[in-house]
Amino acid sequence: MPAESDFLEWLRTQRRQTDLVVVPQGDDLAVLKWPGEDLLLVGVDQVLDGVHFDSTTHPPRAIGRKVMNRNLSDCAAMGCLPAAAVTTAALPIGCGLDYAKELYLGLRDAADKFDCAIMGGDTGSWPGKLVLTVTILGRSAGVQPISRSGAKPGDEIYVTGPLGGSILGRHMTFEPRVALGRRLAESGRVTSMIDISDGLSRDLTHICRQSNVGAIIEADTVPIHPDAVKLSQTDGRSPLDHALNDGEDHELLVTGHLEGLGVPATLVGKIVAEPGMFLKSSHGQNIPLEPRGWDHRL
Amino acid sequence: MPAESDFLEWLRTQRRQTDLVVVPQGDDLAVLKWPGEDLLLVGVDQVLDGVHFDSTTHPPRAIGRKVMNRNLSDCAAMGCLPAAAVTTAALPIGCGLDYAKELYLGLRDAADKFDCAIMGGDTGSWPGKLVLTVTILGRSAGVQPISRSGAKPGDEIYVTGPLGGSILGRHMTFEPRVALGRRLAESGRVTSMIDISDGLSRDLTHICRQSNVGAIIEADTVPIHPDAVKLSQTDGRSPLDHALNDGEDHELLVTGHLEGLGVPATLVGKIVAEPGMFLKSSHGQNIPLEPRGWDHRL
Repeated sequence: MPAESDFLEWLRTQRRQTDLVVVPQGDDLAVLKWPGEDLLLVGVDQVLDGVHFDSTTHPPRAIGRKVMNRNLSDCAAMGCLPAAAVTTAALPIGCGLDYAKELYLGLRDAADKFDCAIMGGDTGSWPGKLVLTVTILGRSAGVQPISRSGAKPGDEIYVTGPLGGSILGRHMTFEPRVALGRRLAESGRVTSMIDISDGLSRDLTHICRQSNVGAIIEADTVPIHPDAVKLSQTDGRSPLDHALNDGEDHELLVTGHLEGLGVPATLVGKIVAEPGMFLKSSHGQNIPLEPRGWDHRL
Repeated sequence: MPAESDFLEWLRTQRRQTDLVVVPQGDDLAVLKWPGEDLLLVGVDQVLDGVHFDSTTHPPRAIGRKVMNRNLSDCAAMGCLPAAAVTTAALPIGCGLDYAKELYLGLRDAADKFDCAIMGGDTGSWPGKLVLTVTILGRSAGVQPISRSGAKPGDEIYVTGPLGGSILGRHMTFEPRVALGRRLAESGRVTSMIDISDGLSRDLTHICRQSNVGAIIEADTVPIHPDAVKLSQTDGRSPLDHALNDGEDHELLVTGHLEGLGVPATLVGKIVAEPGMFLKSSHGQNIPLEPRGWDHRL
């Protein structure tokens, strides 16, 4: 049976040089020379078999790509440049060396698109199911990061693509909006930003609470993905319900004033001073918008 | 049933200010102002229920402490100062809010001893067993990090404490040698360093391979922990076998010349030019020393 050391041996052959990394994977810690003028952005995301993917249907390369792309999407939401990452893998005993390699190559597929180095990690096997994590380091590189706390009354609310029904497949294949997030942050027209991972209603709550504002979403303007329509035909929930509350779209939710900027973003509502979130119907009625979306039980 | 959002709400009350952190947990990414003169050291470690701990016997606070201490031990081995961390938790469904809080407080117990900020993370629940990860950021703070690749023929080999039998309990309660690692790195007398996590024989292999040297360990000089003796009485392996091959001691394995430095380190052998590792018996015989220790199957 192959051992972890065989995997680590193979990983050593996969190393790439980057200017940032002084000592790469293979030591106790990787060593980086961080440019003093850059802010350092750090975050971590995990994916769990049976929750974020299904190892019986999703190939390992797609699973690796997904967890890296989730982290890259966090970089997009802050308007920073992905720079480097470290990863962990809890591998089911007996998964085999090729499976582990495919997971890694999936991580790399996603990271390579943005010149993001994978500097090291921790691999172990266990009798449990697959768990992958990626910790990402991003660089501000001359652009002030966009937080969730800057939304102001009068701001418009935008989303960067159609929403809902990602469970039909897009949750594994989405492209993180790194270039778009960067362009938005550079524009100086954005007051807050978040990526839609838990669902529009829940992620908008994060912005509202951290900015101490409220929001009104115009029901008719929310861009609905065909997958949301398709799903509504089988589960009886409306396409709009899917668009508002499904998770893992990984489009950006943006506040500010983007008119004339020429970016692919749809105006869906506005920020108001009064706390609380409302959905405005085509008849002009304001219905409270509850944060549904994704919330794990403990 | 409590939800992840209740846990995140509680976490927000636990925030601490540090100079380094510009935007703390609660955004897509944490934002740090990294001092330009400092090298940035990064690594990640995971602990898996049934492999690195046993959730049926170890309390959650001890589990949290262990995963943080493993990462702090990596800082010790590089001679850097722990600065900040991000974490993930894959929580068994139904573990409850108090259990999640205790895990976090364990992480904090360990991190607080070294003024290491916990900046954020990712929590999810699943039908699987508990998985925790910590990613740590360390600062060089004026001292060149010590890698595994600097050992030279003629260097002496030291360990910073008695080895073996950590499975009897010390693997959960060890104290990371952060202050000692720092003092060793500052001394200018250390050529390479690693923390003993996989076992002396395996961790020495890492140094030998990455430094392109060999090593001779004097069997009589290896400090043997009473736990190794105790364990040998039940499993028939010799105390020396335990000291050489058991994992998770988290003492430091150091090469260089430490005489007169007044640090608690025991001389156990020397580095030689010829690749290969040998154990020298009291009769002067050289027996090949195989890297046994910890190696996961895949």
